[in-house]
Amino acid sequence: MTIDLNSDLGEGFGPWSMGDDAAMLDVVTSANIACGGHASDPETMYLTLKRAAERGVVVGAHPGYADREGFGRRVIPMTPAEVGRMVAAQIGALAGVAALAGAEVRYVKPHGALGNLAADDRAVADAIVAAVVAQPGSLAVLAISGTELEHAARAAGVAVFSEIYADRAYLPNGRLVPRSQSGAVLHNVEEAATRLIRYFESRQMPVIGGAPIALAGHSVCVHGDTAGAVGMARVLRARLDAAGVPVAPFLGL
Amino acid sequence: MTIDLNSDLGEGFGPWSMGDDAAMLDVVTSANIACGGHASDPETMYLTLKRAAERGVVVGAHPGYADREGFGRRVIPMTPAEVGRMVAAQIGALAGVAALAGAEVRYVKPHGALGNLAADDRAVADAIVAAVVAQPGSLAVLAISGTELEHAARAAGVAVFSEIYADRAYLPNGRLVPRSQSGAVLHNVEEAATRLIRYFESRQMPVIGGAPIALAGHSVCVHGDTAGAVGMARVLRARLDAAGVPVAPFLGL
Amino acid sequence: MTIDLNSDLGEGFGPWSMGDDAAMLDVVTSANIACGGHASDPETMYLTLKRAAERGVVVGAHPGYADREGFGRRVIPMTPAEVGRMVAAQIGALAGVAALAGAEVRYVKPHGALGNLAADDRAVADAIVAAVVAQPGSLAVLAISGTELEHAARAAGVAVFSEIYADRAYLPNGRLVPRSQSGAVLHNVEEAATRLIRYFESRQMPVIGGAPIALAGHSVCVHGDTAGAVGMARVLRARLDAAGVPVAPFLGL
Amino acid sequence: MTIDLNSDLGEGFGPWSMGDDAAMLDVVTSANIACGGHASDPETMYLTLKRAAERGVVVGAHPGYADREGFGRRVIPMTPAEVGRMVAAQIGALAGVAALAGAEVRYVKPHGALGNLAADDRAVADAIVAAVVAQPGSLAVLAISGTELEHAARAAGVAVFSEIYADRAYLPNGRLVPRSQSGAVLHNVEEAATRLIRYFESRQMPVIGGAPIALAGHSVCVHGDTAGAVGMARVLRARLDAAGVPVAPFLGL
Repeated sequence: MTIDLNSDLGEGFGPWSMGDDAAMLDVVTSANIACGGHASDPETMYLTLKRAAERGVVVGAHPGYADREGFGRRVIPMTPAEVGRMVAAQIGALAGVAALAGAEVRYVKPHGALGNLAADDRAVADAIVAAVVAQPGSLAVLAISGTELEHAARAAGVAVFSEIYADRAYLPNGRLVPRSQSGAVLHNVEEAATRLIRYFESRQMPVIGGAPIALAGHSVCVHGDTAGAVGMARVLRARLDAAGVPVAPFLGL
Repeated sequence: MTIDLNSDLGEGFGPWSMGDDAAMLDVVTSANIACGGHASDPETMYLTLKRAAERGVVVGAHPGYADREGFGRRVIPMTPAEVGRMVAAQIGALAGVAALAGAEVRYVKPHGALGNLAADDRAVADAIVAAVVAQPGSLAVLAISGTELEHAARAAGVAVFSEIYADRAYLPNGRLVPRSQSGAVLHNVEEAATRLIRYFESRQMPVIGGAPIALAGHSVCVHGDTAGAVGMARVLRARLDAAGVPVAPFLGL
Repeated sequence: MTIDLNSDLGEGFGPWSMGDDAAMLDVVTSANIACGGHASDPETMYLTLKRAAERGVVVGAHPGYADREGFGRRVIPMTPAEVGRMVAAQIGALAGVAALAGAEVRYVKPHGALGNLAADDRAVADAIVAAVVAQPGSLAVLAISGTELEHAARAAGVAVFSEIYADRAYLPNGRLVPRSQSGAVLHNVEEAATRLIRYFESRQMPVIGGAPIALAGHSVCVHGDTAGAVGMARVLRARLDAAGVPVAPFLGL
Repeated sequence: MTIDLNSDLGEGFGPWSMGDDAAMLDVVTSANIACGGHASDPETMYLTLKRAAERGVVVGAHPGYADREGFGRRVIPMTPAEVGRMVAAQIGALAGVAALAGAEVRYVKPHGALGNLAADDRAVADAIVAAVVAQPGSLAVLAISGTELEHAARAAGVAVFSEIYADRAYLPNGRLVPRSQSGAVLHNVEEAATRLIRYFESRQMPVIGGAPIALAGHSVCVHGDTAGAVGMARVLRARLDAAGVPVAPFLGL
């Protein structure tokens, strides 16, 4: 068994950049690329897709609310059907640029507030999955295990892969401890790496307030937009390599 | 031989509409649909695509400069490569929504200032054609005969269809008389219809300052965004029907 | 005593128009002009301000969520402080263009979802009022009687004028019957006009489910963005004129 | 005599930042703050205005083409009158937020492609100056000596201050050597500082291909959006301080 490392990339806009995409693309095996909704534009998409293709990094679409000012972190009131059309347009835009860049969109992972809503709201999750299913190329979905998005994808017969977090604490029900609670985020990268390697050996995730739980995990999310993100990702990858955990994309190229 | 009627449609944005798309879709056989650049948004795309699919109207992408405030009528300084990426993103966005709407994008016709530039600037035309070629589905190009866009498409082996105007005067070299010159626009719809029927019979177009010229014409552009546009299109179609000129899409459904 | 007629105007964007502003400006005495948030742009602002100034129509700022795609009808999650800064920027933008157009911004009326929220949420209302107070020129506020916005304005010592609706039914507490309920909107303009004239004579408003209530009313809102809006406004104005009700701006020019 | 240091600041947008504004505000005496056109939004404006006010840094408006994707570096085809309305809206927006932030807009310096055009095109310069003149508060203009913008401001009776560059080579006619020519930019900060101090002593600027020329200079532009910008500005300021050149705003607070 292998483990994938994914990161949200291509989240600049026009003259503005976000994180060090080039460095992160040397570490991860899958890239969730912004589609011009919460971030990005055709040039940023093209450059990110090109770099991913050159490095053999698998590409996914990372659609979000079309709200650059809020970076897709605010819920914009929309019906599920409207969400579906927005997501379809964003996946399509990335796929259109990917065709020029010699890359191929293989999966979809919703961003920020849209991702959070799709985890809890089945109608929104269904609308996103319907937009995914309609696209050519049998796209997969990358989702947190146990979410409505995962259920919606499975119900639609869409391949779905499970995302875990190395630096986030878990609850006994398999959901993340909210960031507002203390202990939600593991700031020590060595500790996070150790926990990840143990998870890989046991497929059991430690939780707060209970015994470790069985948790599916195909891909580890390493954040792209925070200071020190690349450094943390490098340590994680080095520790996985040293422990003999094979790091590879969850989807073959 | 048949003649196609095409119109620029889906050029509203959010709460704003442009022209009477539903009525125009009952008249035309091909719809050039805005892609979220100079106009439109996922909802407007979806509604227009759905209506086109329901009526058996063939769908083309109508990409333009990403300048809604200027409605794509201003040249935004960009390199040809940047134009190509912008066009790829817009075709992709429309294709992504079309997949949800049960429609299929079959051809591309650039809008406004981008269309004008692509008629005269081979590098821009080449970049647009490269974006078209890269997309799946063997998209065609709809271009004015004799333009650089037509040449670029032919050079790339892309199917290209010729667009003529019923209500515009022509020059001996086959280009349109600029709107700034008097007589450039035929305001009398009966006169335009008569000229179009004669053109269809002879494949010769009358020009200002010379003898009629041979001119390829697969599709007649009927404007969608001016007052009276639908009325003019209806008269044109009725006259063609009455004259026994078969009106049909230039691309089969 | 006099009564003012106000309408939301200048709500086009780029190539798109909304309603018949020129005609409406011949009917109303105060114009709530969009500020580039939910609608408008510098050209639209300038044209609307110029027309208002030429007709002696008093000008107010009509700020809304910066969400043109949703026309300011969606609540964008923002802190009250963020709302205040957004409103300050929008009032300022309109005032900046007004200075060029020979007009002057005299009051503020929030638009759509922002107006609804400011009616119910005191913190948002306070933030809007703080933005108003900070501007030069002693701007007034136009608010529905009994709302938090009215209370916030009074608490800050800002002149506040009360807006009533001729074509909306009222509840015993002075709030509008929600549009989702039947009977919420009076579609018969003669009936609306008659009710308005009676209100003017008695300062009592009929309500659903109770006796008429005392209600302050300095200005009647006539909608600008619906079909038939201008016709309805003209009838209302003609009936008021015929009944000898003096129609004049709530703020002197 | 004193010399001012100015920098383009507040050029982030939503989640994206540009340069280290907080550090630069500790060095400069005047801040040209983006107005939501080529960059910025109400939150970014507010934060930048607040920081400037806290440090006693004088505030100017830095309007640019409303083209965030191109960062105002592309000429958007507009009539001079349209430019005027755009500039008026942007100055107003900044002034509206400044009123909330306890700051005051005192001058205007156009950004990027708009600044370049205003240097060469008198009609555009006149339109910008007309927008400036119309605003309350007797705003000044910051312009490069010898440009059409300077001439337009003088002709309109607007106070105009001259901007010089420490790190750019000059031509005998007082214009900057275009960046495309070698030697256009002085990359050595010590050399730039020495040249600036000599300029201050002599009011003569060295030029390429001729004897030093007399050149008015009230303010030195230190770039805010390049790597190392803050470091260069600090060295410049330290050298000016050490040389006893009094650094102060060109407009009193």
